[in-house]
Amino acid sequence: MKLVTYQIGPLNANVHQSEEHLHRLGWLTDGNILDIARAWKWAKTEKKWRVEGPPPHSMLELLDREEDGLYQLRRIWEVVRAEDWSSIQVEGEPLAIAAGEARLLAPLPVPRTFRDFYAFEAHVKTARARRGLDMVPEWYQFPVFYFSHPYTLLGPEDPVPVPATRALDYELEIAFIIGKKGRDIPTEKAMDHIAGVCVLNDWSARDLQREEMKVGLGPAKGKDFATSLGPALVTLDELEDRREGDRWNLEMTARVNGRQLSKGNVRDLTFSFGDMVERASRDCLLRPGELVGSGTVGTGCILELGEETHRWLKAGDIVELEIERLGVLRNRIVPGNNHLTE
Amino acid sequence: MKLVTYQIGPLNANVHQSEEHLHRLGWLTDGNILDIARAWKWAKTEKKWRVEGPPPHSMLELLDREEDGLYQLRRIWEVVRAEDWSSIQVEGEPLAIAAGEARLLAPLPVPRTFRDFYAFEAHVKTARARRGLDMVPEWYQFPVFYFSHPYTLLGPEDPVPVPATRALDYELEIAFIIGKKGRDIPTEKAMDHIAGVCVLNDWSARDLQREEMKVGLGPAKGKDFATSLGPALVTLDELEDRREGDRWNLEMTARVNGRQLSKGNVRDLTFSFGDMVERASRDCLLRPGELVGSGTVGTGCILELGEETHRWLKAGDIVELEIERLGVLRNRIVPGNNHLTE
Repeated sequence: MKLVTYQIGPLNANVHQSEEHLHRLGWLTDGNILDIARAWKWAKTEKKWRVEGPPPHSMLELLDREEDGLYQLRRIWEVVRAEDWSSIQVEGEPLAIAAGEARLLAPLPVPRTFRDFYAFEAHVKTARARRGLDMVPEWYQFPVFYFSHPYTLLGPEDPVPVPATRALDYELEIAFIIGKKGRDIPTEKAMDHIAGVCVLNDWSARDLQREEMKVGLGPAKGKDFATSLGPALVTLDELEDRREGDRWNLEMTARVNGRQLSKGNVRDLTFSFGDMVERASRDCLLRPGELVGSGTVGTGCILELGEETHRWLKAGDIVELEIERLGVLRNRIVPGNNHLTE
Repeated sequence: MKLVTYQIGPLNANVHQSEEHLHRLGWLTDGNILDIARAWKWAKTEKKWRVEGPPPHSMLELLDREEDGLYQLRRIWEVVRAEDWSSIQVEGEPLAIAAGEARLLAPLPVPRTFRDFYAFEAHVKTARARRGLDMVPEWYQFPVFYFSHPYTLLGPEDPVPVPATRALDYELEIAFIIGKKGRDIPTEKAMDHIAGVCVLNDWSARDLQREEMKVGLGPAKGKDFATSLGPALVTLDELEDRREGDRWNLEMTARVNGRQLSKGNVRDLTFSFGDMVERASRDCLLRPGELVGSGTVGTGCILELGEETHRWLKAGDIVELEIERLGVLRNRIVPGNNHLTE
């Protein structure tokens, strides 16, 4: 399943994401969104599937239902996709909405936490070298992460306001979202705890990041102004034909204003998702709705490529991150409140 | 006001804090907790104060009411404290509960985010020197913070399980909690955004922290297993007689098994709370219920004092952090799941 959080009606990026009553859940399919609350009612009324209780009213509430939530949705999805869903109406409303008539938000608009790892060796080597730093042996011993800001997530078509920086960058990452709670989870059981994966753009202000990391903490201000996530939360069963052991063969690309700058593959991860879950859950309860980023893929940001390849980003630029099967995150950069790079 | 989150009934530290329906709000006064929901009903019924709507059902919901929430509580508090409250009953329940009959939780059991600064120069100098690092000029230019884990907060009497570390430490800090939303807040307006302050113990696993920070991120695993907060959220008007400009003259001490190890003062902060709010809110919306730590006061942890002064902590130790006017955080360390130091 490709699960999305969306709003129907006029596209208004100024509507704040915390207005959760405006949010709806859907399945993303070719050019359409099938509304989950409506499908739930339809399946219940038509007795297509023995559905109990109310539909999930948000992605977080769905994830809090753990395995049972995704199981119910999958059963309904299998029934719906076998029907001529384009003509189904539920209480006078259509089951299917053309994707162009909806605004997609981040699939999980406010995750409980946001951990970002640093798990692609090529990126770490190059990014450290650009700061005059060698690799440290600790990097190879365990996957390292930092906590980032969970309240500034943007959807796949949202504008990104420029913060107070002269060195705005994108970062091409894959993210996964926890769907089942657990503590001290071993690598080999980690897949049971992952609800699905998304494309993630960990927007970065390199000048702020460089300054604060000299002090030895973070990054924080270098990253807290925006993170894009989407377009959908893709469940792992959709990717089974691309799985190679505990890795997935999925090409990752980034384009700025139509020009391809980055190219990598999810399978190049030095540490697996399982390694990350094991590390994060050591002495710490992981909860549904926690977001985990992989870190940037090799070549996946301007910091690595160098300004000789591309200048830092500015208002007007369009950045598209794509991961095979997961879709495209496409964000336009717009002027912000702090006018340095505009 | 000294505001607490508490549970009535048998002390059961195994009851998880996310069971918010068990939580109640109260005012902490000499040896007693006055229940806020009961006082609210009493004030409404007795027409002591024109109270509208339901009482806040949690600290987060109180903070989300911004200025109006604290204003209503303060009016009711002024009426209640002028009465003989020890005899007041509300729907058959007493207004006052002896503090010994309640379990105090962290005043805000799950903050929206947890930022921790690094704002006492003496601590930063000594802690860096212990790791063989000089001070960096950037430290003096702006206050630096990192995001930490908001889901592992413990109350002032809760046991702290030992994580997988051979170097468990405490950190003596003061924290403040955001009570009004804002973005790009200048230092001089920051006080309007702070609901109150607490004592904070940022428990640290120094071996994990040392390893992960060599890679240049975090800290994360060095800190994510536990943070103690409490005993109360103390509103700033309670401290007005100790205010010196944008600093407060409040002594800070730490004792391990009754022996005083740390001593400092809140006024020694190099950066003010206002500087921290300004930094955190630059290009970033601050929301009610976000928790901000000051960083450790000078001498405020074993890392600084050295193992020649005190060994790392172990199960059975009792750590008491005290800040004048704010109270005592007293936590016993207990065996954890990962048996290294027990």
